[in-house]
Amino acid sequence: EILKSFSDSCDIITLENEFVDHNRLKFIENLGKKVVPSSNTIALIQDKLLQKRTLASNNIPVADFHSVASKNDYKTTSKKLGKRFILKSRKMGYDGYGNFLVKNQNDFEIGVQKLTARHSEIFAEKFVDFDCELAIMVLRTSREIKSYPVVETIQKNHICHTVIAPARVSHSLIKKVKEIAIESVIAVDGYGIFGIELFKQGNKIFVNEMAPRPHNSGHYTIDACVTSQFENHIRAVLNLPLGSTKMLKPFAVMINLLGKKNDSGIVEDYNKALKNENIHLHIYGKKQSRIGRKMGHITLTGNNLDELLKEGIKTEKQIII
Amino acid sequence: EILKSFSDSCDIITLENEFVDHNRLKFIENLGKKVVPSSNTIALIQDKLLQKRTLASNNIPVADFHSVASKNDYKTTSKKLGKRFILKSRKMGYDGYGNFLVKNQNDFEIGVQKLTARHSEIFAEKFVDFDCELAIMVLRTSREIKSYPVVETIQKNHICHTVIAPARVSHSLIKKVKEIAIESVIAVDGYGIFGIELFKQGNKIFVNEMAPRPHNSGHYTIDACVTSQFENHIRAVLNLPLGSTKMLKPFAVMINLLGKKNDSGIVEDYNKALKNENIHLHIYGKKQSRIGRKMGHITLTGNNLDELLKEGIKTEKQIII
Repeated sequence: EILKSFSDSCDIITLENEFVDHNRLKFIENLGKKVVPSSNTIALIQDKLLQKRTLASNNIPVADFHSVASKNDYKTTSKKLGKRFILKSRKMGYDGYGNFLVKNQNDFEIGVQKLTARHSEIFAEKFVDFDCELAIMVLRTSREIKSYPVVETIQKNHICHTVIAPARVSHSLIKKVKEIAIESVIAVDGYGIFGIELFKQGNKIFVNEMAPRPHNSGHYTIDACVTSQFENHIRAVLNLPLGSTKMLKPFAVMINLLGKKNDSGIVEDYNKALKNENIHLHIYGKKQSRIGRKMGHITLTGNNLDELLKEGIKTEKQIII
Repeated sequence: EILKSFSDSCDIITLENEFVDHNRLKFIENLGKKVVPSSNTIALIQDKLLQKRTLASNNIPVADFHSVASKNDYKTTSKKLGKRFILKSRKMGYDGYGNFLVKNQNDFEIGVQKLTARHSEIFAEKFVDFDCELAIMVLRTSREIKSYPVVETIQKNHICHTVIAPARVSHSLIKKVKEIAIESVIAVDGYGIFGIELFKQGNKIFVNEMAPRPHNSGHYTIDACVTSQFENHIRAVLNLPLGSTKMLKPFAVMINLLGKKNDSGIVEDYNKALKNENIHLHIYGKKQSRIGRKMGHITLTGNNLDELLKEGIKTEKQIII
């Protein structure tokens, strides 16, 4: 009844995250309401093991993975993936929550216990010793597929910390990443906007995971591109012509403002950031700060990447939140 | 009681328009709450006769004006202002509402009757046969005064229709306009953001009127400047460092989308606009369209002004709202 009345009040439905059970979305679709991305796409993404299987079966490069049923599965898992691998919750994981690095049988048993206590099902994925992580936003309507620039992402404690646009990799690799990302969206029959995270290891690319929504690695588009990921999300959902994904300046750097204390969400010492015309300050207005929590971000745009990075790192240190 | 409870719920108060009675704002200030712009500034602006007197007494060039008490005042008024002048409501006028052009005694009597029926008090202002109209947004905090580029505004039926940024006038005139605009803000002891409209007649400049808020002539800043007038409004109200007012591309054209029918506010035929990456489409979501009502706007940015104007005019014709 709640879903029905919600659905009746909407013209079209999209998602802020991939954690809504796909069966509920299917129920809404069966009422005759359009959901973008569809329940089918969400089903293929929200279960990370199913996501990996879908990508692999479409010949999209992913790290080797293996289903894990219990803590007795160490031998078969390590035989397939090697000694270093990651245990992952199949559902509800984000920002490293739901991941557990395994180096030996003892780790494995602790990890299985820890993750299955919170989440019913898990799987294991080979540890990729990557040179760097890349990401790209892809847009798709019934008439167009379009992507934003490939970016470099730097994580700290599994949380996206810095995004550099465009990525400092070769043209041929950029082309490869774009092709793989677009194939990934097609593989899940995706319409709307998608953030695809990838590992680069030499000339090899592996899809790490995909998100069926605007993504932290695309926040830079608000200030750095002709059309932001949020406007293009809505355009894509409404099947309207997509806006230009070009950058306004040669380079952009986005740095997340992660909570530095467990306290109220009040921001301090941001005046220097406001004074710098290359810096765009975004504060999310969360009422509580927690160490490591995403409280805002800064985007720097300009012609000299080294300067932007230096300025950005300095500014991130100054702002207390 | 209502004002008190409203005031208690706010940290600081600003205005969307200049039509809130300044006495109410004074009441809120007396409760100890900060209002930006202040009740005093609003008092000097919301009564257009008082505004003109304040500007004139600060040696800011304005068209000659004359107080009008009744329809018996034609002789004294026309003696001072000449045969062509405008009757204006002292309060609540906007977009030409509350204005009446007078060419003879008969017009005068009709005008006085018409305007005083709606509004208690009126005055008269000399008709300025201008070459073009200019406008500029000025920002002021306790530490900074800053302005956006001087723009050209083209009105249709007293409603702002097209804005061209920057204005196609000489550097010396730009400088003059900026000085006059800043003096105008200081004259009303203004803090916050102000839109100042001016007439250009040869090398002469007259302040037409000022608005103590973001202004239609500043809408182009959303897409065309480093910081939009809306962000800078909030920065100024909070006495924060002001954002850069520089343009991102050499030229911008803003064209209002005025209602073309009396109907629902549903927009049609905007796909071509969305396909053009120089065009930024803004729809206000008003539920009802009315002929001439401001329903949205488009902003075009780029390197070639003539092309932007041509493209803009074509696009405005295409969109049905």
